[in-house]
Amino acid sequence: MFTGLSAFPLTPMNEQGIKEQEFTQLVARLAQAQVDSIGVLGSTGSYAYLSVEERARVAKLSVESAAGVPVVVGIGALRTRDVLANAEHAQQAGAGGLLLAPVSYQKLTDDDVFNLFSTVSRAISVPLCVYDNPGTTHFTFSDELHGRIAELPQVRSIKIPPVPYNLEDAKARVARLRALIPNDVTIGISGDPAAATGLLAGCEAWYSVMGGLYPELALALTRAAQAGDAEQAQTRSDALAPLWALYHDYGGSLRVAATIAELTGRASAPCLPQPLNTLQGEARQRVAAVIEALDLH
Amino acid sequence: MFTGLSAFPLTPMNEQGIKEQEFTQLVARLAQAQVDSIGVLGSTGSYAYLSVEERARVAKLSVESAAGVPVVVGIGALRTRDVLANAEHAQQAGAGGLLLAPVSYQKLTDDDVFNLFSTVSRAISVPLCVYDNPGTTHFTFSDELHGRIAELPQVRSIKIPPVPYNLEDAKARVARLRALIPNDVTIGISGDPAAATGLLAGCEAWYSVMGGLYPELALALTRAAQAGDAEQAQTRSDALAPLWALYHDYGGSLRVAATIAELTGRASAPCLPQPLNTLQGEARQRVAAVIEALDLH
Repeated sequence: MFTGLSAFPLTPMNEQGIKEQEFTQLVARLAQAQVDSIGVLGSTGSYAYLSVEERARVAKLSVESAAGVPVVVGIGALRTRDVLANAEHAQQAGAGGLLLAPVSYQKLTDDDVFNLFSTVSRAISVPLCVYDNPGTTHFTFSDELHGRIAELPQVRSIKIPPVPYNLEDAKARVARLRALIPNDVTIGISGDPAAATGLLAGCEAWYSVMGGLYPELALALTRAAQAGDAEQAQTRSDALAPLWALYHDYGGSLRVAATIAELTGRASAPCLPQPLNTLQGEARQRVAAVIEALDLH
Repeated sequence: MFTGLSAFPLTPMNEQGIKEQEFTQLVARLAQAQVDSIGVLGSTGSYAYLSVEERARVAKLSVESAAGVPVVVGIGALRTRDVLANAEHAQQAGAGGLLLAPVSYQKLTDDDVFNLFSTVSRAISVPLCVYDNPGTTHFTFSDELHGRIAELPQVRSIKIPPVPYNLEDAKARVARLRALIPNDVTIGISGDPAAATGLLAGCEAWYSVMGGLYPELALALTRAAQAGDAEQAQTRSDALAPLWALYHDYGGSLRVAATIAELTGRASAPCLPQPLNTLQGEARQRVAAVIEALDLH
């Protein structure tokens, strides 16, 4: 479940609701490419902007469209009550795994977060991935807290933020965490630009935004790293440097991925929930030029 | 509407729902003390943790219990769609004003936030207060952006984060913002420990957490500052220093206020939405000791 390439599709939407057909086409394309799992309602899937009811619907649609590929469903919410409802709906829909970030408005303590994971892990029957994304949750995990949470029932993976780009530093970072968690808990890299380094440094999974749009490219990079072909994995990542530069320059991967989806016909504009917007003007032209240059159609 | 003391009550709740009787008693007590306005569903009222439907109910209950004192209702949400629904429900309930923070999960740009306020200001018919709280929203307003938003229709106040404690520095900070906004837009201080300094530095309002529990004390401080009695205002604030120290040491005002409410019988435990918790153990004992020492029953 939590190894190899987990590809995260967008959830195209406008102010009226979810664009269901566009979403199911994105999911079906990932299934066709035979990614190792499909991660719906991640940050890329705009989970935080949807109601409990809308999330139940997305979970159902995704499993129906995944053609047997395991679906991981994001269940994070500000309230434990809503997290538990999301978990229940995702399990009823047939999710193979769940993904939980400690979303915050008021600053959370380590005890709050441990208790959240403890409560949820006791309420679910499928494997859980801990989603560590300080840029959006504003909660910073210590490795010690990761170690405590990784001992809880159902916890089987940790989705970590980007590792250092230097391979030796990346290996040291992964080894530090590895030493504190059970053997059956995988470590997965997020932040596409750090994916090759992360996989080569010992991460067993890549939780991938670009994999949600270009599953074949992401699979090729993943398989090269899994086979120990460091040069090919790194070369494939380096070839995408213009894409990574867009993430860097335009506030992260979501707006870039959504703009690409609009420009390539994968989603109709607008596809993000207001007040978020895809890139416009010069930024949009630059994205279009990168699509052209890298042949990312 | 947006001058003097605006007192912010807690919204006591547990995992089953809102404790309506406890909430209406808190509101009625503020009305009885004749605060200048009652600010429901602020950060202190845990607005971010409630559904659109629950927030409509709280808005209705608060106006019914406010005995004619103007009620300001917090309408912030991650999605513009939900902000507009909250605004509509609050106006239908009889809110005298609205309070809007740019809540974020994905990082917001200045354009996103301007467009949010522009959309909302065109959709409402009552005055709006801009809620600037970078500690919870993770969005930082520039004064230039405040100036642009303050020109929008319906915008009549800005709720600013704590000013510097040095009075001259505080005056300079308020004057900088004042120079960029229309004359009919007030500036209100938040962060109780900075309230006396903020009011003496030229803020026309105090958006107060402790005023939601102890309206008479907060009114006395406010009236002294409004009368230009700097010494009395500062002395009254200094007398509450042990309370401000609790805010500082325990992650802000919400957990302290909620713990006080539980300890003084204003709310039954638990009164915060999980995964948040009131203070326990030694921290709770220290809060109890401060209540005793300052006679805050």
